[in-house]
Amino acid sequence: MVEALPPASQWITVLGLLAGVLTTLSFLPQVLKAWKSRSTRDISLGMFLMFCTGVFLWIVYGVLVADIPVIAANVLTFLLAATILILKLRYH
Amino acid sequence: MVEALPPASQWITVLGLLAGVLTTLSFLPQVLKAWKSRSTRDISLGMFLMFCTGVFLWIVYGVLVADIPVIAANVLTFLLAATILILKLRYH
Repeated sequence: MVEALPPASQWITVLGLLAGVLTTLSFLPQVLKAWKSRSTRDISLGMFLMFCTGVFLWIVYGVLVADIPVIAANVLTFLLAATILILKLRYH
Repeated sequence: MVEALPPASQWITVLGLLAGVLTTLSFLPQVLKAWKSRSTRDISLGMFLMFCTGVFLWIVYGVLVADIPVIAANVLTFLLAATILILKLRYH
């Protein structure tokens, strides 16, 4: 049975993908909370302005180095974080 | 003067570093806001639980693949995001 396990490098890749999925999808509960409560007073505008700018630069970086996982993860993160930014500006 | 400019690959690296600095330091305004206001009602507990877990996995991934920039960026991000999580649990 041990022979059927993937090599260590594959487990490391799975770990990295899991890390990326968690950090990207983590913004979804905040989108849903802000959307439902229509209250964003405690959310920092500075955080989401900096974060969206940084994630946009990650996308540009991913395009320039032709890294599909970096592009994909950051496009999704950008959509979620920009939604929080818009809700912050609307319900501040 | 044009010859003094670094090659394109160096500009791309600078862009990636700038992206990393922005996304990492973006959590600082949220730490300061939550700390000063002692109010975290609008912050999603689910977001910061998922995000801290994901960033912790990024640190483990960085250690396993011996990637110093991944380790450094994520250790700092973890410290800031975990502080927000603690403030959320304290002032919920």
